[in-house]
Amino acid sequence: MRPPSLLSLTLDSALLRIAHIADLSHLPDHLVIDLFRRTLSAGKLTEKVLKLFLATGCEEIILAVQLLNIKQPLVPVLPTNSEVDIVIAALQPNLTTFFEAWRPFFSRFHIIVIKDPDMTEDLQIPTGFDLKVYTKSDINGVLGASSINFSGHSCRYFGYLVSRKKYVISIDDNCLPAKDTAGSTVDVVAQHMANLKTPATPFFFNTLYDPYRKGADFVRGYPFSLREGVECMLSCGLWMHNADYDPMTHVVKRNQRNTTYVDAVMTVPLGAMLPVSGINVAFNRDVLGPAMFPGLRLRNEGKHRWDTLEDIWNGLCAKVVCDSLGYGVKTGLPYVMRSDAEAGKALESLKDWEGVKIMDDVLPFFQSLKLSRTAVTVDDCVKELAGIVREKLGPKNAIFTEAADAMVEWNNLWKAHGAQNA
Amino acid sequence: MRPPSLLSLTLDSALLRIAHIADLSHLPDHLVIDLFRRTLSAGKLTEKVLKLFLATGCEEIILAVQLLNIKQPLVPVLPTNSEVDIVIAALQPNLTTFFEAWRPFFSRFHIIVIKDPDMTEDLQIPTGFDLKVYTKSDINGVLGASSINFSGHSCRYFGYLVSRKKYVISIDDNCLPAKDTAGSTVDVVAQHMANLKTPATPFFFNTLYDPYRKGADFVRGYPFSLREGVECMLSCGLWMHNADYDPMTHVVKRNQRNTTYVDAVMTVPLGAMLPVSGINVAFNRDVLGPAMFPGLRLRNEGKHRWDTLEDIWNGLCAKVVCDSLGYGVKTGLPYVMRSDAEAGKALESLKDWEGVKIMDDVLPFFQSLKLSRTAVTVDDCVKELAGIVREKLGPKNAIFTEAADAMVEWNNLWKAHGAQNA
Repeated sequence: MRPPSLLSLTLDSALLRIAHIADLSHLPDHLVIDLFRRTLSAGKLTEKVLKLFLATGCEEIILAVQLLNIKQPLVPVLPTNSEVDIVIAALQPNLTTFFEAWRPFFSRFHIIVIKDPDMTEDLQIPTGFDLKVYTKSDINGVLGASSINFSGHSCRYFGYLVSRKKYVISIDDNCLPAKDTAGSTVDVVAQHMANLKTPATPFFFNTLYDPYRKGADFVRGYPFSLREGVECMLSCGLWMHNADYDPMTHVVKRNQRNTTYVDAVMTVPLGAMLPVSGINVAFNRDVLGPAMFPGLRLRNEGKHRWDTLEDIWNGLCAKVVCDSLGYGVKTGLPYVMRSDAEAGKALESLKDWEGVKIMDDVLPFFQSLKLSRTAVTVDDCVKELAGIVREKLGPKNAIFTEAADAMVEWNNLWKAHGAQNA
Repeated sequence: MRPPSLLSLTLDSALLRIAHIADLSHLPDHLVIDLFRRTLSAGKLTEKVLKLFLATGCEEIILAVQLLNIKQPLVPVLPTNSEVDIVIAALQPNLTTFFEAWRPFFSRFHIIVIKDPDMTEDLQIPTGFDLKVYTKSDINGVLGASSINFSGHSCRYFGYLVSRKKYVISIDDNCLPAKDTAGSTVDVVAQHMANLKTPATPFFFNTLYDPYRKGADFVRGYPFSLREGVECMLSCGLWMHNADYDPMTHVVKRNQRNTTYVDAVMTVPLGAMLPVSGINVAFNRDVLGPAMFPGLRLRNEGKHRWDTLEDIWNGLCAKVVCDSLGYGVKTGLPYVMRSDAEAGKALESLKDWEGVKIMDDVLPFFQSLKLSRTAVTVDDCVKELAGIVREKLGPKNAIFTEAADAMVEWNNLWKAHGAQNA
């Protein structure tokens, strides 16, 4: 056996203290590669050491890291718990499974639970959370002369009102954490906050999705003047398993489940409308709060998601306001896992579900809507929007007049109770 | 040991002839589940048998299929070779690797290869394809008085002109088949044809992406009047590995590679513009052909993708035309794998790359553009568009006047040579 070469001994010695080396960029590529191999074999590739090798810019290292699928731990944009509230609408009494499943992600934050005012049973919530429950009597105490109906899914909006934080995240109580394609549990808080804290790009579609995501950028042809983007105010998360269908589709496709995990976040383009689902949303409460109201309430509305259009209406209003003021709305990640629908019930809802034809009036209304340039705050925009709803949609169906009333009342409620910070 | 029960024996006997049973829906759920378990253990779960069990509608079976991640083989929308041409722009002489890699997917189709008229070397193409090569002399023979410049990436458009098929698919010659998240090689032809042959939904954003994809549908709130969608005319595929950046971004992020496979197809909403890349596209040639031209040509344009804006310009024109005529444009799947960029060259291109600021004029122009209602064909729209480009953009830069000239000339060329079917 030949004795080891001087070079080999030098590399061995470098390997011993690899964690303390600050810069490898003066080394020729073949030595960097050799040292990288030895580091891998010796099991000494920590996050810091990986960065050291990547900083050399050596193409072979980059390629090797990709081929070996070595991932740099993502440093999530972690919100401080002083700027985020979690708002949960409790439509079922036993929230034990829900809270235990979310404990790793929610326990650092203040949680606001709004108990559906129609529910009489006591809530079951495990201990160990910084949590406040609001009930029917709290709602009545604040409401005063307002006639806004906070029952069912609409109770969450009361939580938006009493929160004192900059951001709010709200998840339906039949949802559990989802897993991503690599099998890791999705941190819904970190992803929503990343969506809200990085710019949105509503003026041109980026074909490779969110340009602010790690490893992404703007594709060729994206004007440089638009690359700074605008502030994102609303982050619409998605859901796996039980798809968010209307009662008809639930009846027809009762066995269909959403199994496709789409690993993307995108800005919904300026002028394009989307059906925002309240299942899994986050928003900048400081700015968008006056536009996050329970407006449209269907007659005979039940307690199932498929009974409601309140979130769809709210989302259309919020999108129009964001478009008008130059803010962004994102959709995509994070996913949550929705539990199974209760079999058979959708057919009952269907019998008198008013939502079937209403969207055929609602969507063209929002698509042709232009708010005036003089409405320069969210508050201004909501007031103007309520007036236009009353005038244009009111004559078609009384529920639109009621929606306009609720929007005006929400504006007053927000000024009295919502527009305060911690 | 107890003897087997009569029930157990009956199930065993059913298992023996499970492949011949036509219907299980009369069985109680617990027997269906028991039989399913036995079928799995016996290794008898074929595609047909899976369908038989799923057809019972038994919730536990559905759940078990999901939990075990049992996939039903997708039946792709296979195009007939009489309706699709593959068009390849040859910018490098040796296409051996390219064609061998694509053989499983391209060999059923007629392939049109356009040799870059600036390239003097002979092409190397493996045998076994139904393939026709067009060269500089073919181009000159057809062009006549036209001054359209078909050199570099623009040579592919000559292929669009001489094709006689309803659909055209075009892939850059530095791309190879990609793999999906499950490790299967992507059939770029099948996916593009699925995109073009299922409706597009440009009027409202479907948050769970393409509603016509297997296992998907329209989310709650999607108006029923819009669910039929419109015909899709343009399918923009994506790329892994070497991202499609402009020269600046290539210089700054020379080591960045696109590694995120986003498993989605979506319609780009009405009015939203996107940077269409010519790397991987398919379109309905019969309808959209007059709008698929090489218009914008930068001065000192080289042979790299990052040198060009020809495809971006073409895409904006095509999107405006589709929006005006009520057609759809999709983006997303299929992916291709782009080879590494040649190191260092982007910096050279950058020195005199005119594309840096041009998009800041181009995009607002297209975003504010409205074609008249009297333009009812693609041909009409292109003529009108060329006139507006000449009038509004021409005074800013001579390359826009040249683009308008090229668009008019393309229209004439198309009438003389393109507008014919097989």
